[in-house]
Amino acid sequence: MSQKVRFPFLVLCAALLPLHAALNLMPMPAQHTLGQGSLVINQSFRIAIAGYTEPRLVAAAARARRVLSQQTGMPRLPDTLRDESGPVLTVHCERASAPVQKLGEDESYQLVVDTHGASLNAPNPLGVLRGLETFLQLVESSAEGFSAPAITIHDFPRFPWRGLHLDVSRHWMPVDVVKRNLDGMAAVKLNVFHWHLTDDEGFRIESKLFPKLQGMGSDGQFYTQEQVRDIIAYARDRGIRVVPEFDIPGHATSWLVGYPEFAAAPGPYQIERRFGVFDPTLDPTKEAVYDFLDKLIGEMAALFPDEFFHIGGDEVTGKQWRQNEDIQAFVRQHGLQNNGELQAYFNQRVQAIVSKHRKRMEGWDEILNPNLPKDIVIQSWRGSKSLAEAARQGYQVVLSSGYYIDLIEPAAKHYLVDPLGKEADSLSDEEKKRVLGGEACMWSEYVGPETVDSRIWPRTAAIAERFWSPQNVTDVDSMYARLEVVSRSLDWRGLTHRSNYPKMLERLADGGATEAVQILADVVEPVKGYRRGRGPVRPTQQSALNRLVDAARCESVRAREFARLVDAMDRPRIREWLIRWRDNDARLQPTVAKSFLLAEAAGLSQELRQVAETGLAALDLLDAHKRAPAAWVKRQQALLEEARKPRAEVLLMIVPSVEKLLNGVAPQKPIMRSK
Amino acid sequence: MSQKVRFPFLVLCAALLPLHAALNLMPMPAQHTLGQGSLVINQSFRIAIAGYTEPRLVAAAARARRVLSQQTGMPRLPDTLRDESGPVLTVHCERASAPVQKLGEDESYQLVVDTHGASLNAPNPLGVLRGLETFLQLVESSAEGFSAPAITIHDFPRFPWRGLHLDVSRHWMPVDVVKRNLDGMAAVKLNVFHWHLTDDEGFRIESKLFPKLQGMGSDGQFYTQEQVRDIIAYARDRGIRVVPEFDIPGHATSWLVGYPEFAAAPGPYQIERRFGVFDPTLDPTKEAVYDFLDKLIGEMAALFPDEFFHIGGDEVTGKQWRQNEDIQAFVRQHGLQNNGELQAYFNQRVQAIVSKHRKRMEGWDEILNPNLPKDIVIQSWRGSKSLAEAARQGYQVVLSSGYYIDLIEPAAKHYLVDPLGKEADSLSDEEKKRVLGGEACMWSEYVGPETVDSRIWPRTAAIAERFWSPQNVTDVDSMYARLEVVSRSLDWRGLTHRSNYPKMLERLADGGATEAVQILADVVEPVKGYRRGRGPVRPTQQSALNRLVDAARCESVRAREFARLVDAMDRPRIREWLIRWRDNDARLQPTVAKSFLLAEAAGLSQELRQVAETGLAALDLLDAHKRAPAAWVKRQQALLEEARKPRAEVLLMIVPSVEKLLNGVAPQKPIMRSK
Repeated sequence: MSQKVRFPFLVLCAALLPLHAALNLMPMPAQHTLGQGSLVINQSFRIAIAGYTEPRLVAAAARARRVLSQQTGMPRLPDTLRDESGPVLTVHCERASAPVQKLGEDESYQLVVDTHGASLNAPNPLGVLRGLETFLQLVESSAEGFSAPAITIHDFPRFPWRGLHLDVSRHWMPVDVVKRNLDGMAAVKLNVFHWHLTDDEGFRIESKLFPKLQGMGSDGQFYTQEQVRDIIAYARDRGIRVVPEFDIPGHATSWLVGYPEFAAAPGPYQIERRFGVFDPTLDPTKEAVYDFLDKLIGEMAALFPDEFFHIGGDEVTGKQWRQNEDIQAFVRQHGLQNNGELQAYFNQRVQAIVSKHRKRMEGWDEILNPNLPKDIVIQSWRGSKSLAEAARQGYQVVLSSGYYIDLIEPAAKHYLVDPLGKEADSLSDEEKKRVLGGEACMWSEYVGPETVDSRIWPRTAAIAERFWSPQNVTDVDSMYARLEVVSRSLDWRGLTHRSNYPKMLERLADGGATEAVQILADVVEPVKGYRRGRGPVRPTQQSALNRLVDAARCESVRAREFARLVDAMDRPRIREWLIRWRDNDARLQPTVAKSFLLAEAAGLSQELRQVAETGLAALDLLDAHKRAPAAWVKRQQALLEEARKPRAEVLLMIVPSVEKLLNGVAPQKPIMRSK
Repeated sequence: MSQKVRFPFLVLCAALLPLHAALNLMPMPAQHTLGQGSLVINQSFRIAIAGYTEPRLVAAAARARRVLSQQTGMPRLPDTLRDESGPVLTVHCERASAPVQKLGEDESYQLVVDTHGASLNAPNPLGVLRGLETFLQLVESSAEGFSAPAITIHDFPRFPWRGLHLDVSRHWMPVDVVKRNLDGMAAVKLNVFHWHLTDDEGFRIESKLFPKLQGMGSDGQFYTQEQVRDIIAYARDRGIRVVPEFDIPGHATSWLVGYPEFAAAPGPYQIERRFGVFDPTLDPTKEAVYDFLDKLIGEMAALFPDEFFHIGGDEVTGKQWRQNEDIQAFVRQHGLQNNGELQAYFNQRVQAIVSKHRKRMEGWDEILNPNLPKDIVIQSWRGSKSLAEAARQGYQVVLSSGYYIDLIEPAAKHYLVDPLGKEADSLSDEEKKRVLGGEACMWSEYVGPETVDSRIWPRTAAIAERFWSPQNVTDVDSMYARLEVVSRSLDWRGLTHRSNYPKMLERLADGGATEAVQILADVVEPVKGYRRGRGPVRPTQQSALNRLVDAARCESVRAREFARLVDAMDRPRIREWLIRWRDNDARLQPTVAKSFLLAEAAGLSQELRQVAETGLAALDLLDAHKRAPAAWVKRQQALLEEARKPRAEVLLMIVPSVEKLLNGVAPQKPIMRSK
């Protein structure tokens, strides 16, 4: 990046790491130096724009003042009433950025706060946008009032491609869901919105040339072109590129409902309601298919200004191709070896079309093929190995493997995945430059408008830090401390990842013991990976997402805090919580008996009681400096083993901590001591 | 009302009262009979419109389905996928209602639910709107799924004027605040939105004829005429009339900023920032003032379709009139006795203007004068006496005294105020008919967009029941039980009275012990009546509303529950809570020390600890069947007396319950026993 020349301070970063915990910034800036004192932020605070300006900057300043007002509760004073000697953030921007935001554009900025004021300097508006978000994160409540610490920040991103991928096909996400998530992205400096617009379960965008695509493939749930333009403008205002994905030739069932003639097998087709990998595929041997794609891609290329156009290309089963004699004849005729080569042929044709419409093609791992030109971008979902392979072959790559947030893994796990880690670490410097960054992927099998925010946030903020901050910013404890702060501030932006939790719990309780429902829900997490939906009744697009597993947070903060109490052997607080969990079951069961939504949690609640009882018994022994009989310990271990298993598709997250307590009183082990 | 003829079932109502607690309806319908079984509501549920239809009905049905989907978490199935044998609510509407909704229009409906389906019949769309809300309230979670009980409801309102008055002048309320509160009003069958658009602190509506009104009198915070039309249409869609208020001749400072020439004393004027009763007044002796009012009222009468036009008329200090020699000469010249008669003269002139523009004039108590025609409506804020007086004189009246929700009184207090109670009870039947209903009044000295919902809701739902339901529906326990349910459901409509609470607590805690902040906040209420804002620094329009008093709920549900535990002498749970409150102080103080917003709560938190300690000591004595020494009891009583006083403008609501515990161990008193 060119910024490296401008800011030779990067080397200081490691030395400054101990300060991170105190600074609630996420992502952490490339370099910062704390000064003395702080700038008091009161109602007279204003943002002055000096130097180059444009409507986007004026809007950004107004937005920043609004967010500040929401966060602090201080009303914004009308200009006429403001104390002119009040605190000012002076923004100085050198020049315009590209009319259509480009990959790799300069996003650097310098922010200086002292006790008298603050200044934000950036080469172009993108840096101003990033710097304003940093400034907002600096404002905290102190004993004296709201203030920002004196600090000098030189900041720029480590990777130029920092994305969030949102699947709006499997579950429809209305415009307001997209917009508030764009707000969230902007807050943590993400700059690519990858919009997964089509899949087997829905074609979610209006085509004026082929209206049966959305007309028959979306249940009426699609974005009009006007809405798309509105969202693109909204994203640009926040320094975010919008890359659309039209997934072909597989994952295309919804396309074929209206246009079965483009399928590799005879129709009719219905919108797919289930989740998985399905056979309906475009026919790569028909010229009519390429004519169709030429027109459609042309229409969409005109609608989406971004340089990149994502054609998906993943998970083609090939079954329709194998079973179609004409297609097999075509394969033989063209000397192709297998379906893989047939897809490569298809991709070459599509690439020519995309290129003709002045776009660079992007696709998932599977499109990688030496016959494709080197200006395409490969998005790797299968792992670091395929990422490195593509980079070695000369392709630019974006990593998504390790960032599948739909799998409900802890933030720490994603956080420690580095786009240049593992296999990519062995790349040459030149090859490494081809690694553009990464994308958090939100697939939407098990999320709807009500729950999607809680699956994206706050964990995506940790991933955003991975993409932006220096490689050596990897302290997980610091990350979690800051993640909680950024999570709260995202709430003020209108995201619902926190506010929908009590509502969903109240729905589950339906007038019953909401507090008891919450005590249980606070210590569970949804099952991880691909374990959801494996019961006898397979969930579909129409299944209600109103269960405990939907309300449960991706990461139990309560369980993490309890683990900390156990590590610190804070016996009074450990006991307090164990008693609360033990007693909760009796309070919860009457509500469980009345609510069909909670019925599945009956056993789980009992299990929480049993686990708490085990913990309490162990704690009693610890307090008495006694060890437990081996047989009893064995029985308790079996009980805990059982409690580790999912129930109602959630996991009881305090089990490992109780196991620690149990181990502390097991024979042959040293007794733990209070710190 | 004509409905009485159609539904002769009213007499059954009293007999059915015991059922109320089980039925979570608010307002309670005029008459209902529970049947056997229930109607299962699944994703195939649909609303079919038979008979007369219009876009408003189609929109209402779509809205009802959306609310149902939000409440239950069940996605709405596309029509193509729906099981045609699924549950149906058939709506049958006889005819259109008036193009502009009229006072006293029929709002009756009949709703029948059985195990096979439901039907809703109404003479016109207003009844359909009311009935749909009732149906939504019937849907509950059961052991078998979501369902509505089999029931037959005949319903109609007791009063035709059921309003919410919102002051958008002292604090500006953007369009979205108004809209979500209209949603809330519709949910509880209120039908008049009284929009207090102007006051000393702001002129909040665009005048195209006199643009300096909003241009200089609103800090740019006003509704455009387009927004006004949009809100009126939004309200009409929900069966709500919109009555605008332009408060004259007093409360008019903001008018005079742009037009000082209409004032009774020389300018210049500034927008008033403080709260109270101020002197700036229109000059009632200048013909130019009436010319101006003629044009302005003409402009606004054309914008607002409703039959009524509210001219305020309250709290004229008369100081400017007394001090103006020309005005005093005018008074003598016209043989007027005092400023009151001068205001009556003004009102007569204004009434002629309002009438010329084909509106009926409405005003506060003070406009009452025998010289005004009998078609005006008097809104009584001063009490039942002035209401009855006006009714006796032949005027129609609306009661607001007793419904001032800005005073943060308990819902029960408002609930038991009857428009036909007290003095009005002595009116003749004919005079009683002139009592049109009432209005909850939300004055906005101490609320902003963030907090206003929590001051309006849920208490206004109880007031709405008073206006709609039969006079004998007065069980306070039943009201509170149902109020909690309706409060939750209002949350799903987008009101923020519940969801802003954790956010505001997190702001107070600012990363500290949020849970400890909540434990304190859960047991306090803001000071009542006019006691807020009496400290040394007088609050203004620009004061931040981000303190504990702003976060605190109007009624502490926790304190009410604790009172119930004490009444039931549930000793284990009483002890549990007292311990939690006692221990909370130590957990909270470090956060208090760091947050300037919480600093004022330091003493309050200690007081909660002390009160809890007193309660625990009393509980120990009760458990030991002992009495306390008189001197100790006296000391504790003094401590509790001190704890009753406001601190940080909030009240500790558990004090009376702890006092009960203390009394139980005082000498000379019988010891309380567990039930």
